[in-house]
Amino acid sequence: MRFQHETLPQRVGFTPGDAAAAVEAEVKRLRGRRVMVIASTAEADLAGRVTADVPVVLRHEEVVMHVPVAAAERARAAAATHEADVLVCVGGGSTTGLAKAVALTSGLPIVAVPTTYAGSEATSVWGLTERARKTTGTDPRVLPRAIVYDATLTLSLPVAMSVASALNALAHCVDSMWAPRTDPIDQALAGEGIRALAAGLPALVAEPTALAGREQVLYGAYLSAVAFSSAGSGLHHKICHVLGGAYNLPHAQTHAVVLPYVLAFNAAAAPEAEHRIAEAFGAASAHDGLNRLRGAVNAPRALRDHGLAEADIDDAAHAILGSVPANNPRPVTLLDLRRILRAAWQGADPLTLEKDGEEN
Amino acid sequence: MRFQHETLPQRVGFTPGDAAAAVEAEVKRLRGRRVMVIASTAEADLAGRVTADVPVVLRHEEVVMHVPVAAAERARAAAATHEADVLVCVGGGSTTGLAKAVALTSGLPIVAVPTTYAGSEATSVWGLTERARKTTGTDPRVLPRAIVYDATLTLSLPVAMSVASALNALAHCVDSMWAPRTDPIDQALAGEGIRALAAGLPALVAEPTALAGREQVLYGAYLSAVAFSSAGSGLHHKICHVLGGAYNLPHAQTHAVVLPYVLAFNAAAAPEAEHRIAEAFGAASAHDGLNRLRGAVNAPRALRDHGLAEADIDDAAHAILGSVPANNPRPVTLLDLRRILRAAWQGADPLTLEKDGEEN
Repeated sequence: MRFQHETLPQRVGFTPGDAAAAVEAEVKRLRGRRVMVIASTAEADLAGRVTADVPVVLRHEEVVMHVPVAAAERARAAAATHEADVLVCVGGGSTTGLAKAVALTSGLPIVAVPTTYAGSEATSVWGLTERARKTTGTDPRVLPRAIVYDATLTLSLPVAMSVASALNALAHCVDSMWAPRTDPIDQALAGEGIRALAAGLPALVAEPTALAGREQVLYGAYLSAVAFSSAGSGLHHKICHVLGGAYNLPHAQTHAVVLPYVLAFNAAAAPEAEHRIAEAFGAASAHDGLNRLRGAVNAPRALRDHGLAEADIDDAAHAILGSVPANNPRPVTLLDLRRILRAAWQGADPLTLEKDGEEN
Repeated sequence: MRFQHETLPQRVGFTPGDAAAAVEAEVKRLRGRRVMVIASTAEADLAGRVTADVPVVLRHEEVVMHVPVAAAERARAAAATHEADVLVCVGGGSTTGLAKAVALTSGLPIVAVPTTYAGSEATSVWGLTERARKTTGTDPRVLPRAIVYDATLTLSLPVAMSVASALNALAHCVDSMWAPRTDPIDQALAGEGIRALAAGLPALVAEPTALAGREQVLYGAYLSAVAFSSAGSGLHHKICHVLGGAYNLPHAQTHAVVLPYVLAFNAAAAPEAEHRIAEAFGAASAHDGLNRLRGAVNAPRALRDHGLAEADIDDAAHAILGSVPANNPRPVTLLDLRRILRAAWQGADPLTLEKDGEEN
């Protein structure tokens, strides 16, 4: 047993229906007197309600995907001009990302109020985009001091988007079991995340306007972000990153399709991880658990339905090979990647990958 | 789902055999140039080896149980005189406690190197004793910035003491499942702690000079402290606190005897907790798992063997009643406490408590 684990300081509250009171309490705790609220125009009303009880000096609504540097600079200038002392961000990943960009240079504390399952609020990772190039980094200043999770704020998130986002979170949890920096603490939190997502996601699909499922998914998404940001990207995310970047496949669908194949490929070589995943699903095997969940939410099944051409499989395998984590539970050859991609492309039974054969 | 969880900032490293290098890295990270080493005379040699590669200005060896205020004052004065900028403590709970007392007033960062399974290194709780009265409190300054766990340092801990200490940690984990401030994160960490202790403790007993079991127990003890300090004292600890304080029963043995009775009493009313505990033990039920572990390590079975007089049962039940947590999974009456204590006193089958009968 040899590992380093860094636990990041954060207050996390799950307060369904009570975001406004929770935000007030967190701002008071930070002795905030001049709050800058960051929320997109689309979420301005919601942000207004959530921040009704704190001393707001500025409502900043220019939220742009991927946080362009110019937009970040304008938000930073606005924070300085208005002498803001606390940032409250209400929204999804781009909104949290903008708050982080302001915190990165100003050191202002963030209270994050997520309205999606993106998970950025639970990490110290920031990202900025300039001329179509994304720069990312890690800085303790950008980690929100407090998160206010209120599942009622996610009720307007469409079911399809909720499912895609939750399956992405699930992939973070599963991949965390064997990611490069994984440790038993990451694995325990990832297992708890799988448990919550497996319970919450079918409930969310069955009754999208009810809170119970959404609460579990929100909680699972939080844990997936904590585990993933500590453990790093495993084989699954390396594959999806290439497919998304080079072939422009849709992020969430790619994750949903690829995950069972990576699981099938790694499971036999990672029996402890397999056991943890199975247990978290409450299933006889990790495969059974994932399969059952995917069935319950009608998850996408083949990459050929989502834009990958058969002719691209070989090139994609080559592109992925260079970024395969060295400590993946099982060595990964070019042939392995071809087999994984081909199976995922056609939507074949993932269990055929368990065999070590080279017949494909 | 409604809870608040505060994650405390700490770096934790498990580096078997490499404590000296790990301490050097942590002191460097803290930019320490004037290290005060706190370790009892008995552990001076060991502390010397562990701190061989850091710039030590002072080795403080006056470590006294329960951290008397006068001893704390002397350590604080020594730290100030020598202009220490980092504290490195090597030892058990009293040693860590003394470092915390210095940090409480000076704000100096602590690197903790535990040599027992006490767990104090993972909490922000401090304690001081003056004229036989113990004062405790919580302060973020006393939480060690980094923990260096090196299981080779625990090899000299006698087996009997290791077992008692590990069963105490196990009780922390189990009780955390229903303690007053418990939340799903505490429960996930406590489950992981049970898993590690259940794997490690029999291995430690079977082969005390091997590392594998000791590593797991050390890891489990760490998690038990994290979970317990967040969740607070549940019914089990309230009972043991009274038995230890008013009847002077030995701490570890009392925990070991009482735990299965509290588990049997609460289990049916806390099915989720029961399921988590069972799963962590890898057993059909929480009771079976605990029973199997107790058998494997020959745990003590009856309070009458450890100093409780039958005549004291009624008074003890009265004394406990006032401190029973209001949100225990099942209401606790005076009669219930009498039944629990009587069963634990005679070492009866804990499962007789599952029944809601009032026949005793």
